[in-house]
Amino acid sequence: MKLATLKDGSRDGRLVVVSNDLTRCTDANRIAPTMQHALDFWDAVAPELEAMARGLESGSVPAERFHERQALSPLPRAYQWADGSAYINHVELVRKARGAEMPPSFYDDPLIYQGGSDSFLAPRDPIPSRPDWGTDFEGEVAVITGDVPMGCDEETARELIRLVMLVNDVSLRGLIPGELGKGFGFFQGKPSSAFSPVAVTPAALPGWRDGKLHGTLHVDHNGAPFGRADAGIDMTFDFGRLIAHAARTRSLSAGTIIGSGTVSNKLDGGPGKPVAEGGAGYSCIAELRMIETIADGTARSPFLAPGDTVRIEMPGPDGRSLFGAIEQEVVAA
Amino acid sequence: MKLATLKDGSRDGRLVVVSNDLTRCTDANRIAPTMQHALDFWDAVAPELEAMARGLESGSVPAERFHERQALSPLPRAYQWADGSAYINHVELVRKARGAEMPPSFYDDPLIYQGGSDSFLAPRDPIPSRPDWGTDFEGEVAVITGDVPMGCDEETARELIRLVMLVNDVSLRGLIPGELGKGFGFFQGKPSSAFSPVAVTPAALPGWRDGKLHGTLHVDHNGAPFGRADAGIDMTFDFGRLIAHAARTRSLSAGTIIGSGTVSNKLDGGPGKPVAEGGAGYSCIAELRMIETIADGTARSPFLAPGDTVRIEMPGPDGRSLFGAIEQEVVAA
Repeated sequence: MKLATLKDGSRDGRLVVVSNDLTRCTDANRIAPTMQHALDFWDAVAPELEAMARGLESGSVPAERFHERQALSPLPRAYQWADGSAYINHVELVRKARGAEMPPSFYDDPLIYQGGSDSFLAPRDPIPSRPDWGTDFEGEVAVITGDVPMGCDEETARELIRLVMLVNDVSLRGLIPGELGKGFGFFQGKPSSAFSPVAVTPAALPGWRDGKLHGTLHVDHNGAPFGRADAGIDMTFDFGRLIAHAARTRSLSAGTIIGSGTVSNKLDGGPGKPVAEGGAGYSCIAELRMIETIADGTARSPFLAPGDTVRIEMPGPDGRSLFGAIEQEVVAA
Repeated sequence: MKLATLKDGSRDGRLVVVSNDLTRCTDANRIAPTMQHALDFWDAVAPELEAMARGLESGSVPAERFHERQALSPLPRAYQWADGSAYINHVELVRKARGAEMPPSFYDDPLIYQGGSDSFLAPRDPIPSRPDWGTDFEGEVAVITGDVPMGCDEETARELIRLVMLVNDVSLRGLIPGELGKGFGFFQGKPSSAFSPVAVTPAALPGWRDGKLHGTLHVDHNGAPFGRADAGIDMTFDFGRLIAHAARTRSLSAGTIIGSGTVSNKLDGGPGKPVAEGGAGYSCIAELRMIETIADGTARSPFLAPGDTVRIEMPGPDGRSLFGAIEQEVVAA
């Protein structure tokens, strides 16, 4: 089943069920007016939404054309957004580029940060930026959970994943070092993220297994292929593990979004090559800059400037987009 | 005007207007069913709620008895909870106790962290704890904002403060050092916080001025006075400043909660004395332990254990409780 939230002038938008090929949708209002409502009452509501989805495929329910540009993020605002760093290759590169050691604990203890969730950008919203902010994209996979009890184990956590999405975790590289130096984590350095137009149940994703999404994450920068990493490869901690980590000392309530961190693949044990050289490329500019720094001692690729675009998408086995595309242009703040 | 959210079995509870003396309340459902709804439509809704509050004082609207124990946190779940460290004395002590230097930037750049907001404890809920967690309370003041535009200045930010509350920002001292050492801030070390039974508009608080709440924060530990610090004293950054800091790179949506950080007073330029010795005491156990460490090289006071209680409250000029009491017992998780 695929779900989306359409713009209707309200803060939470209106919930629709979307066809598998993303061409049509049908209003879910009589079952659940909003995505958060559906998540709050998932056990009662999901079977009805699934029936509606089948009706949409068979043509037995009224349908309208689905336009990705009319979608808000599936949860336009959420009660929680916590982002992991499951692709250790990315973390290794960051550390290596700045000459910092990689603590051994990073390989068996997930790193996760609490993000702001009160107002997400829509998937086609511009990204406000200033010259000194060092604005960057981060292509990631994210899941929405049901109610997760405190102390939940990994296996149970996997069963509590309701929906899967893509996310552009916008990062302000110019502000992050100063902020992390203060010791309390990110705040100004992580402005509003944008999610894919469509959220999909794990059962409807052919590449979903073992708490990971297998498939190539297409990240394009200014229209050119920038990243083609497989989200199922080199993911050290699966989503079940990330959720269990987040729920160690408190319960997580329905509608919690957990991110994978920047998708990143190694190549033959190395740090990865650009797409143009036959590699899997990168899901953020910072990673390319780290590779440049490691190779030449200096980063050449600039961060995003007004007019730059980023597009994040994942095709299914038939080449069709699974979640629709995040497509954003950078504008002066 | 004073507002509270009563338990009714739902996730968001039901909104009531509470009398100034906290003895009576009246259902606000016909105006706004929930606190978040009131905040989402504040400009339209607040005048009606104010009229209801006047009716409650004059006896012209139906009233029921208000019991603090029936209250959830005013926002039982929120889209954002960001907590500052406005009382620099507290930060200085933490650093001094562990022999770390105080960066000069800390005196003119607010420190703020993104907290989890998906499920707050009710003001009388137990605090789950494990022996190695080093469970501590932190007595603080917090405000709820309206919609704050990105780049908002301090003065405008002050005008956008809708409600004021108290908060117990539960902190797991045993987990925090390892977590902060990983560089991404708090997560497991900051489980669910609890807020005061009642939230109050700034206009209804005699001690509210210049974006600060002036008044003595009563923090009792196991029934004995532990903290009597004035929340209006030694607050380096007022709430307007904290909100503007949080809104530098993104807008904040209505219902955002901003905390002051642990209330902490200096004494004659020194770090503060226990209440029993005539000082203002402390709003968390960690601060007392720091003073012990600075004085004797070792911390004697233990963190919270099952059966321990904490009570956080602020009396008004007439001695009556302004927000009701946060009153929690620690239980084994």
